[in-house]
Amino acid sequence: MRTRPYVTTSPTRLAAALLDVAARNGLDAASVREVANEAGVSIGAVQHHFPTKDEMLAYSFRTLSDRVLNRLTNVDPDIDPARTLFSALSQLLPLDEERGSEVHVMSAFAVRAVTSPTLSAIRTATLFTIRTGIARVLIRAGTPDPETRAALLLSTANGLALDAAASPELYPREYLTHALHAQVQLVLDGADAH
Amino acid sequence: MRTRPYVTTSPTRLAAALLDVAARNGLDAASVREVANEAGVSIGAVQHHFPTKDEMLAYSFRTLSDRVLNRLTNVDPDIDPARTLFSALSQLLPLDEERGSEVHVMSAFAVRAVTSPTLSAIRTATLFTIRTGIARVLIRAGTPDPETRAALLLSTANGLALDAAASPELYPREYLTHALHAQVQLVLDGADAH
Repeated sequence: MRTRPYVTTSPTRLAAALLDVAARNGLDAASVREVANEAGVSIGAVQHHFPTKDEMLAYSFRTLSDRVLNRLTNVDPDIDPARTLFSALSQLLPLDEERGSEVHVMSAFAVRAVTSPTLSAIRTATLFTIRTGIARVLIRAGTPDPETRAALLLSTANGLALDAAASPELYPREYLTHALHAQVQLVLDGADAH
Repeated sequence: MRTRPYVTTSPTRLAAALLDVAARNGLDAASVREVANEAGVSIGAVQHHFPTKDEMLAYSFRTLSDRVLNRLTNVDPDIDPARTLFSALSQLLPLDEERGSEVHVMSAFAVRAVTSPTLSAIRTATLFTIRTGIARVLIRAGTPDPETRAALLLSTANGLALDAAASPELYPREYLTHALHAQVQLVLDGADAH
């Protein structure tokens, strides 16, 4: 086993190692020992940055959530709200290998958030930020009941993502993009711009 | 620790014990030892019925999926497709404590299905059965693109369920039923009956 002193590692690098382990073998496999091994550092080096496993998980979940949020909020807004919403929400679907890994690990954290107040708070902040951004597009487009429809769009994307990750043969990529397009159209129904 | 000979237990009872452990402490906690302890039997008794942990997990996932499917398919069909769809899909939402536990454990199995072909096959069969049932209602109602819209309704319910379980303060029960009603109305848009 490769070991290096903790001065050569960082929380960012350890979070990346944790997310790699979790994508490959599930979040249960992401023990302090496995993360140390993956990052090529000693267990003590991990514990130096994260005194408890919970802190390591929270930091890693925040890192992953921020990465996804950044991609979503950096989508170029289009004059057409349908195109803006599709571009943003397709960031949440397993349309390539990277997003497939993300969906797997994000969903695993969401499940763990059911019994962890710390992880739940991170999840809630992320969902709330995304929902608010979607609602803003829907309000501008003049859509009825924009807050509810924003939640529906987000939950549809999250649901499709997990359903597709667990049952890829039921949800090939073309099917996922077709379904997301259809949901965006439904949600924009009754908007001024339509 | 209570121990009883394996003749007094059954796969059904062990599955119930596993689902209780998983609802309380997560699916990772559902080891053979914990399940034996919860059921009040010896580890050998569990291994008699389930030679491997994977077999125990698969049997338990099938038991849980069948329970949910039964509730869904036993919903009384109403003349109004919106009422039929709402009644069926609300079975998937955490609208009471029992369904809250179910959502937690079902989602945990879905995540594990990403890396387990056996669990994935069980998940796929369940989703396919539900999707087909929803599509039948939509076809009768004369809805455009009924197959896609059936998938959207199902994924929305699954997504809302996990989002609500992980972030209950963002999705109180009244909000969940309002959102499901709204999605059913959107999906039925353009139907003959509307």
